[in-house]
Amino acid sequence: MSMPAGLAHTPEPPYYAVIFTSRRTAGDHGYDALSRRMVELSAGRDGFLGLETVRGADGVGITVSYWRDEAAILAWKRDPEHQLAQRGGRATWYDAYEIRIARVERAYGFARGA
Amino acid sequence: MSMPAGLAHTPEPPYYAVIFTSRRTAGDHGYDALSRRMVELSAGRDGFLGLETVRGADGVGITVSYWRDEAAILAWKRDPEHQLAQRGGRATWYDAYEIRIARVERAYGFARGA
Repeated sequence: MSMPAGLAHTPEPPYYAVIFTSRRTAGDHGYDALSRRMVELSAGRDGFLGLETVRGADGVGITVSYWRDEAAILAWKRDPEHQLAQRGGRATWYDAYEIRIARVERAYGFARGA
Repeated sequence: MSMPAGLAHTPEPPYYAVIFTSRRTAGDHGYDALSRRMVELSAGRDGFLGLETVRGADGVGITVSYWRDEAAILAWKRDPEHQLAQRGGRATWYDAYEIRIARVERAYGFARGA
């Protein structure tokens, strides 16, 4: 599975968002493959609604994943393979990160020609 | 003012997030200057708490701005200069976008060496 490009198609609110903002360390050190694997794993979980991810040339990235409820978020956080990746993130891949869990209350969009 | 790079330093939750995911059209057409101006304007508003913004080489971008409450978000949405920019976004700069307003309930982070 390749990394999803573009905008997530989510249902009507309410649902939950995990806003994950990070600054990478230098070098890959297996990060690219691991992050693809985490996207693949999360997308297969019960309660997963979508994901949007962007990383800039300066190493700062934002990944927002969308979930049906907080229980689905917690279950994904506790997934053993994900926990191993979280440890790798602190040991190697991230200089800093911030995770915010938020309840999406309203949403609207625009699409050219739609 | 230059575009902020990196992670926003926000207070303890609860507060609000506006998750703005977009896909740009080709070419600049004044977008870069306008987006810098919008960051500058929003950062000066009452209730603004911080902003994180990343755009990838594929034209997909995520900007998350943080706000004290929904009233501050609505006031910024109605700002005349911002409204002009919103019209420009639909007319010229964006192929598609999605805006999600969410209440941040929990947050935690990591910083190397902290």
